[in-house]
Amino acid sequence: MRNLAIITKKQKPRAWEAGQELARWLKQRGVEAVPLENEPEPHIPPLPPEVGLIVVMGGDGTLLSVARHYGRLNVPILGVNVGGLGFLTEVSLEELYPAMEQVLAGHFEVENRLLLSATLIREGQPPWQETVLNDVVINKGALARIIELTVWIDGEYLTTYRSDGLIVSTPTGSTAYTLSAGGPIVYPSLSHIIVLPICPHTLSNRPIILPDSSTVAITFNERFFDVYLTLDGQVGRALMPRDRVEVRAAPHRLTLVKSPQRSYFEILRAKLGWGEWGGLKLNEKEK
Amino acid sequence: MRNLAIITKKQKPRAWEAGQELARWLKQRGVEAVPLENEPEPHIPPLPPEVGLIVVMGGDGTLLSVARHYGRLNVPILGVNVGGLGFLTEVSLEELYPAMEQVLAGHFEVENRLLLSATLIREGQPPWQETVLNDVVINKGALARIIELTVWIDGEYLTTYRSDGLIVSTPTGSTAYTLSAGGPIVYPSLSHIIVLPICPHTLSNRPIILPDSSTVAITFNERFFDVYLTLDGQVGRALMPRDRVEVRAAPHRLTLVKSPQRSYFEILRAKLGWGEWGGLKLNEKEK
Amino acid sequence: MRNLAIITKKQKPRAWEAGQELARWLKQRGVEAVPLENEPEPHIPPLPPEVGLIVVMGGDGTLLSVARHYGRLNVPILGVNVGGLGFLTEVSLEELYPAMEQVLAGHFEVENRLLLSATLIREGQPPWQETVLNDVVINKGALARIIELTVWIDGEYLTTYRSDGLIVSTPTGSTAYTLSAGGPIVYPSLSHIIVLPICPHTLSNRPIILPDSSTVAITFNERFFDVYLTLDGQVGRALMPRDRVEVRAAPHRLTLVKSPQRSYFEILRAKLGWGEWGGLKLNEKEK
Amino acid sequence: MRNLAIITKKQKPRAWEAGQELARWLKQRGVEAVPLENEPEPHIPPLPPEVGLIVVMGGDGTLLSVARHYGRLNVPILGVNVGGLGFLTEVSLEELYPAMEQVLAGHFEVENRLLLSATLIREGQPPWQETVLNDVVINKGALARIIELTVWIDGEYLTTYRSDGLIVSTPTGSTAYTLSAGGPIVYPSLSHIIVLPICPHTLSNRPIILPDSSTVAITFNERFFDVYLTLDGQVGRALMPRDRVEVRAAPHRLTLVKSPQRSYFEILRAKLGWGEWGGLKLNEKEK
Repeated sequence: MRNLAIITKKQKPRAWEAGQELARWLKQRGVEAVPLENEPEPHIPPLPPEVGLIVVMGGDGTLLSVARHYGRLNVPILGVNVGGLGFLTEVSLEELYPAMEQVLAGHFEVENRLLLSATLIREGQPPWQETVLNDVVINKGALARIIELTVWIDGEYLTTYRSDGLIVSTPTGSTAYTLSAGGPIVYPSLSHIIVLPICPHTLSNRPIILPDSSTVAITFNERFFDVYLTLDGQVGRALMPRDRVEVRAAPHRLTLVKSPQRSYFEILRAKLGWGEWGGLKLNEKEK
Repeated sequence: MRNLAIITKKQKPRAWEAGQELARWLKQRGVEAVPLENEPEPHIPPLPPEVGLIVVMGGDGTLLSVARHYGRLNVPILGVNVGGLGFLTEVSLEELYPAMEQVLAGHFEVENRLLLSATLIREGQPPWQETVLNDVVINKGALARIIELTVWIDGEYLTTYRSDGLIVSTPTGSTAYTLSAGGPIVYPSLSHIIVLPICPHTLSNRPIILPDSSTVAITFNERFFDVYLTLDGQVGRALMPRDRVEVRAAPHRLTLVKSPQRSYFEILRAKLGWGEWGGLKLNEKEK
Repeated sequence: MRNLAIITKKQKPRAWEAGQELARWLKQRGVEAVPLENEPEPHIPPLPPEVGLIVVMGGDGTLLSVARHYGRLNVPILGVNVGGLGFLTEVSLEELYPAMEQVLAGHFEVENRLLLSATLIREGQPPWQETVLNDVVINKGALARIIELTVWIDGEYLTTYRSDGLIVSTPTGSTAYTLSAGGPIVYPSLSHIIVLPICPHTLSNRPIILPDSSTVAITFNERFFDVYLTLDGQVGRALMPRDRVEVRAAPHRLTLVKSPQRSYFEILRAKLGWGEWGGLKLNEKEK
Repeated sequence: MRNLAIITKKQKPRAWEAGQELARWLKQRGVEAVPLENEPEPHIPPLPPEVGLIVVMGGDGTLLSVARHYGRLNVPILGVNVGGLGFLTEVSLEELYPAMEQVLAGHFEVENRLLLSATLIREGQPPWQETVLNDVVINKGALARIIELTVWIDGEYLTTYRSDGLIVSTPTGSTAYTLSAGGPIVYPSLSHIIVLPICPHTLSNRPIILPDSSTVAITFNERFFDVYLTLDGQVGRALMPRDRVEVRAAPHRLTLVKSPQRSYFEILRAKLGWGEWGGLKLNEKEK
C-alpha cells in the first residue's frame, strides 16, 4: 500500500492536526497520504485513482458522508474517532498508530456493509438517486400531525402506515436512528433491509426485516402534503404529491476495515451501557 | 336547559346537516340551539352567555379545537362523532337522540378533564399562552436529525433528552400521540402530567408521570435550531434560540358529558382492537 | 426521638456490623436502638411499641420485606443501602451519619407511599391477604406457554389478556419489575394503580394507570392451570382453578424518610444511566 | 405423488373428520393417504418411507410438533388450519380442496425454513439435543424474581442479561413468542438467529439478529437456581447449575408448502390487525 487518502471532518482543527501528524508518520514509512477535507456535495474532490485506503478522521457522521461519496469505489475505509467511540469510527486516536502498523503490514480484516440506493421518482423529471450507509427516512414536517405512507414490497402491497414517518435501514443503520424508533440490532455484516414506521398509530406495526433482494416502494396520501425525504440524516428533499421513493440494495458494498482492537460486541456494550452486571470482565473469552 | 350551542366541523356538510336536524328536534322540545361552525383562531365567535351545553359534531379534532376555545367557560361539552368512534366524541349519530333525551331530562354524568396551559417565553416579547386538552409537543424539523431538550421540573433539573422531540400530555392525550410514542394509557379523569421523549437516543428515557402541581420547563440546545412547538397538533410556532416553554395544569378543567351508552373501557377495547380473545361477550358485567 | 429499631439484612455481616456501629453512635447521643434481623414470615419479631423510626440496612429487597411486615404501624422508615444505590434505600453508608444527625434534629421530610392490599379468594377457604409496596404479579409457570387472565375494574370487564402474566403495581413499583415489562415511571408520591400485562399477545395491550379507588379483580381461564401469585417478588402461592385475586389500595400508607442528600430525579438519572448528554452538571439548579 | 401422510391434531374430532374426508377424496384420485395422529414423543410413529407430502390438520402448535419430529426427513409439509388462520397453517378448510388440486398437479411452491438445534450439555451426561422451528426459551420459574444469563456468540462474550429469561428464535418464530417479547418481524425465508431477553432490567438490551453461522451458548448464574429450558413451547426441562445450552442452525431446513391463495404479507395484516387505514383494498396489486 503506497497511497492513502486522509479525509478529515470539515472545520474541526483537532481532526486536521491528527491527520497532518498521521501524514508525516506515513511519509517516514514511505507511504504517500493525500489530505482531504470532507466537503458538501458539489465540492467533493475526486479520489486520486491509485489510493488503496481511506482513513476517515472525525465521527460517524463524517464516515457516513465519505461512504456516500466514495463508497462505490471499493476502496477500504478505516474510521478513526476524534471525539467519542463511534459505531463506524471504532479506532480511537490512542489506538491509531498501533492500528496503522498492522494495516501497513497487511494484518487487517475488512467487512462488507450493505449500502442502500434510494431513488426519488417525480413526474416529468429525471429520477434523483443517492446511496446511503445508514437509512432512508420519509417523515412529516414539524407542524404536521401525521402522514399516511403506503409501502409496496416487490410490487406487492404491504400496508399503509399512519405515523410520523418511515425508516428504511441497513444493518449498519440498525444502531442509529432505527434503534431510537424501536428497531432491533442487526449484525452489521448481514445483508438485509429493515422497514419500520416512526411512532405508528397501529401499535402492532412492528419493524420488518426483509431480504436484500427486495425493492421497497413508498408513496404517500396526497392529503398530507408536508412530507420530506432524508438520506443518512444529511441530505434532504421536500416531497411532492405523486412522488414515489424506491429503495433497494446498492450494486456495490462498502468495504470497512475492522478495528484490530475492538469487536462489534464490545462496541455494543460500550455504546449501549450493557454489561454492568454479573461481575464478568467484559473482554473475557469463554473458557 | 333552555339554550344550547351546536358546533359543527368546518366545511363538513354531513356534520352541518346533522346539526340542523338536531336544532329542529330541539326546537320542537322548546330548546333554542345556536349553530356555530368551528372557526380558526381570530374568527372564533363568542359563545352566547346563557348557553348551558355545547354539542360538538365532528371528530376528536373538532372537539380539541372547541375545548381550546371554550374550555375555560365551564360549559359541559357533548361530543358526537360524524365519522368513526372517537375517544372524545363517544356518541354516534345513531345514539344521538336517545342520548339527547337523557341529557334534556338531566340524566347525565360529567367528567372533569385536566387541561394544560403552555406558555412560550421569548426575550423582549410578551409571553404567548395557550390551553390544550391533549398535548404540548416540541419537535425537530423534518430535515433535522436530532434535537437536545433540557427539562426542569419545578426548577429542578430532570434530564437532557436527545430525541426527535418531547410530548407533555394530559391523561386525555394519553390515547392520542402519546400512545404512538410509547406512553401508557392514563384513566382520563385522573389529573397528571405525562412527559415523554419521541424516539430518544437513550433507550432508558421512559415516560414519566408527574403530579398535576408540577411545572415542566423546557429549553433547547441552541446548536439545534430547527425546533417547533405544536399544541394539540393544531396550532404551531417555530421556536427561537433562548426560548423557553413552560407547561402546567390550567386553572380550569374541561367538563365533558359522558356517553350514557358506552364506558371508557368499551372505547379502549374498540379503538385498540382488544378483546378478540377468550370468547367473552365484551359488555358482560361480572357475575 | 428516644427509640429506634435497626433492621439489618439477614445473614449479611456487613449490614450487621454497620447496624452495630450505628447503635453505639446513637447510644452516645442518648438514643436507644433495638437491633433486629429481617426474618421470614412466621418469625417476625414484634416492633417495640415506643419505636419512633425504623432504620433498614440492606437493599431494596430488605426494605420491601420490612414494609410488608411493619408498614401498617405508621412508623417512618429510613433506607440505608449497604451495597449499591437503591430506589428505596437512598442513603449510602458514607452519608449515614450526616443523615442521622439531621434526622435526630428533626430536620427531615417524609413521603407517603401507596401500599396495595392483595386478597386471594378461594372457595371454601378464608381469604388470604397481604400488603405490598411494589407489586402483585400473576404469572405462568416456566414450562407453560401462555395464560389467559381476565381483569375486572370495579366489577366492570376490562379485557382478557393472553400473556406471560400480569402486574398490578404501585408508583413505587414502577421502577422495579414494571419498568422491565414496559411500564412508565410514576412519581412515587402519586397514588395510582398500574395494570400491565407481561409479554401480551395483543400488541396494543399497553399499561393502564387507574385511580387508587379502583378494585382490580383477576380471574384466569381454567384451561391454563400452571398459574402463580407473587407478592413483591418475595412471597408466592400456586393458584387453583376458580381462584380470584383482588387488588386495591391498602388502608394505610408507608411513611418513608426522604434522603436529605438526594432527590428522586437524581436517583432516576443514576439508576437508569441518563444524563451523559449535553455537558450539564447533573445537580445543577436552573438559573 | 402417490403417497401422503395426513397428521391430525390429537383428540380433535373436527381435525380427524376433515382428515378422513381428505383421505377419501385422495383415494378417488388414486393417492394413498396414511392417517396419523400427532403423538407425544415416545409414541411417534415412523413415517412410511415413500411419503411425498405431509398434510397437517390442526393449528400452528400441531405443525410445530410435526416439524420437530419429521422436519429432518425433507418431506414437504402443508399446514391446514382447522380453527383460525395460523402463521404456519395458512390454508383453511374451505381452501383445502382447491389447494390440494394444485398440489397434486405439481403447481405449488415450497419455502425452506431455518430450524434451530438446541443442545443441553450437563456434566457426566450425554448431551440432550432437540430441533425447533420457532424458539428455544430459557426462563425463570414462576416464583423466582429474576435470573442472570450469560450469552457467548461463537465463544465471544456478548453480555449478561438480568431478565425473566431469554429467547433464541428463528425467523419463523419471530411472529410467535418473540413478537410478544418485543422482537421484530423477520421475513420467514431468511436464515438468521434472533436473540432477545424477556423483560430485561437493562432497558437497552434490545433484540439482536445474528448470522445463521453463529453458535449461541448460554450459561446461568448458579445463585438463581429456578431455571427452565423450553423448546417451541412444547418440550421442557429444568436446568441445573453448570448446565450449558448451545443453539445453532440445524443441518437441515423445513420444507413448507406455500399457500397458493395467500401471501405472507396478507397473513401479517390479518393476524396483526393492520390495514384498516387508507381505504385500500388489501389484496390490491400496485398499478
